[in-house]
Amino acid sequence: PAVPPPAPEGTKHFSFKLLKTDGRARRGEISTPHGTVQTPAFMPVGTQATVKAMFMGHVEATGAEVVLGNTYHLMLRPTAERVARLGGLHKFMNWNKTILTDSGGFQVMSLAQLRKLDEDGVRFQSHIDGQRYHLTPERSVEIQGLLGSDIQMQLDECIKLPAERAEVSRAMELSLRWAVRSREQFERMDGPAKGQALYGIVQGGDVPDLRIRSAEELGKLPFEGYSVGGLAVGEPQHVMLEMLDITLPAMPTHKPRYLMGVGTPDDLLESVRRGIDQFDCVMPTRAGRHGLAYTRFGKVNLKNARHADDPRPLDEASTCEATNHYSRAYLHHLVRAGEGLGAMLLTWNNIHYYQDLMRGMREAIEAGTFDDFYARTKEDWARGDIAAL
Amino acid sequence: PAVPPPAPEGTKHFSFKLLKTDGRARRGEISTPHGTVQTPAFMPVGTQATVKAMFMGHVEATGAEVVLGNTYHLMLRPTAERVARLGGLHKFMNWNKTILTDSGGFQVMSLAQLRKLDEDGVRFQSHIDGQRYHLTPERSVEIQGLLGSDIQMQLDECIKLPAERAEVSRAMELSLRWAVRSREQFERMDGPAKGQALYGIVQGGDVPDLRIRSAEELGKLPFEGYSVGGLAVGEPQHVMLEMLDITLPAMPTHKPRYLMGVGTPDDLLESVRRGIDQFDCVMPTRAGRHGLAYTRFGKVNLKNARHADDPRPLDEASTCEATNHYSRAYLHHLVRAGEGLGAMLLTWNNIHYYQDLMRGMREAIEAGTFDDFYARTKEDWARGDIAAL
Ligand SMILES: [Zn+2]
Ligand SMILES: [Zn+2]
Repeated sequence: PAVPPPAPEGTKHFSFKLLKTDGRARRGEISTPHGTVQTPAFMPVGTQATVKAMFMGHVEATGAEVVLGNTYHLMLRPTAERVARLGGLHKFMNWNKTILTDSGGFQVMSLAQLRKLDEDGVRFQSHIDGQRYHLTPERSVEIQGLLGSDIQMQLDECIKLPAERAEVSRAMELSLRWAVRSREQFERMDGPAKGQALYGIVQGGDVPDLRIRSAEELGKLPFEGYSVGGLAVGEPQHVMLEMLDITLPAMPTHKPRYLMGVGTPDDLLESVRRGIDQFDCVMPTRAGRHGLAYTRFGKVNLKNARHADDPRPLDEASTCEATNHYSRAYLHHLVRAGEGLGAMLLTWNNIHYYQDLMRGMREAIEAGTFDDFYARTKEDWARGDIAAL
Repeated sequence: PAVPPPAPEGTKHFSFKLLKTDGRARRGEISTPHGTVQTPAFMPVGTQATVKAMFMGHVEATGAEVVLGNTYHLMLRPTAERVARLGGLHKFMNWNKTILTDSGGFQVMSLAQLRKLDEDGVRFQSHIDGQRYHLTPERSVEIQGLLGSDIQMQLDECIKLPAERAEVSRAMELSLRWAVRSREQFERMDGPAKGQALYGIVQGGDVPDLRIRSAEELGKLPFEGYSVGGLAVGEPQHVMLEMLDITLPAMPTHKPRYLMGVGTPDDLLESVRRGIDQFDCVMPTRAGRHGLAYTRFGKVNLKNARHADDPRPLDEASTCEATNHYSRAYLHHLVRAGEGLGAMLLTWNNIHYYQDLMRGMREAIEAGTFDDFYARTKEDWARGDIAAL
């Protein structure tokens, strides 16, 4: 019988300081038992206790201060109990900074088989071996406690858009009831005393009054932070941004705001401008495994033959080792040849670029020049990649 | 029209110093335009201008001073002409130490389609796109010159064992004629003035007098070093070692001796004992991608369920970062989950172990204690992995 990993020595309570605003953009600092996180922050995704194709030392070198672990994957393999016996997720994956885990709910709905959801929770079979599981709000918090993550998410129901109002409302109300149960479990497990955080998740699809009701009701509960869920699930970007415009003013000001599963560099820029503090997305890592590089000049497809003889680095101004030591011709060769080093270098480049973008936004908010940064960054993207030789 | 990369500044001529012997085991030093190589040396294989799943900085950190590039793969993609235009293979793959290239012949025979061999050379179609090529002894040296490798191999014909004496003899005699043509091309291309080396390759299968004739005839040509080819091609280990016992005394003493495509840690130990100076093999890198770790205790299969809850590192005495920071349980998880980091860490561990083994042998020869090292190493392997918890 596994016990949750003990609280780290010298545990500090979770806190969030709002340091500065520029328009609606916010500059803040989250403190957890595993250090501080400067916000707005992008969290690389470490689904199965590894940020795919990267050494965690290199993830740290890009400036990332927090990574995300996926509860669904980890509860199936290696299991939360095993991770707890081995001393917790930080030790297991050799990452001593902050870890945020999701609730598992989103991936149950997208990956698992034979899902059956009711008031109590969701029953499903593993996509790996068909084993049966029952995930409830309480069990999700229990799993996240066993993993020992610093920031946990409540179990919620996230539905695809477009959807009928009645269906959006039903899922949002269910998520609110699950929020209460999640909080109770988190306190039973001494999450607050361990300095951990539990975030509530705002749902409500693309229906403004449902979003506002969800945000206001969650705000009455003592969550350490709040997520905006149920966006980037198929709707156009303008719908997502309108929902942020509507939802964020109804959320507590002095708590971190995390937009789940988002997004492209442009999504990050637009969402920070509206007051989001935290993001996660598989895009930079997944793109890196498919020969795509994010750069100041937009997205560059290294598979393209135009790079075959190009001796220039991806971006001569980048401070990333992955970019500095190699020509576009070499990256093209690696991608075409299906070599693992291609994925390793491009993933590293992409995480570095995302962190650079966040760093740029943080500095601009501090300097009160976010609008300039926003305009300049959009111009660079619009200009596109450097001309072929 | 590509030109071969210029000779590196301050080019030194290729040289080999035999520093010490202990029995038949030899401790030496090779100098090339890209540094020195302490022998006996193991050369990690960088088939397609990358040691699979590794950063070259980590390859260097293991102590490797030379890597091997495969002419067959590189001539197809990205092509030797392109590599030359981009400044040579060292620059292309970001490796500033010594590079050895093979002649391409071995992989033409194992990978290419519609092979047709005659006195002139070998015609074949690419296994990638069916394009037709004609590889001659002259063209192989030309390609290796374009790549800019420090140590080149002559084109030879390597046949599978067992084989009839007449067939072994025919291939060996053809390889001798190709040796002469290779040498002429190497000198036309100013290889010696660039400080580069061309090795002749001893063939003769498992037929003692053919091996001796091959070694003696090649010894009359001014090669900088000599390879033993055509072994580890299906014959039992004892046949390979008997051929070394017979062949090595017929080879020049003051030139490096390279046993191609070999082998297991035990093959290396046995072959150094007989007087081999250089090795290459895909085993440590390939095994790393298949969940297998080479250690002081022999080969460890990380897929095995016995590691699932094991908090211990692979080898607590190893100085390899890949081994120190992670539990066997974590490596097991990565391998089971098919995560790239599993291949990255185990490949690193394996190259590190191979380099440690070579280091151990070099130190033992220097100290005149090779026999002790040999016995102790065999005992460790025989003892097997640490007991399960
Ligand atoms: Zn995403
Ligand atoms: Zn081999």
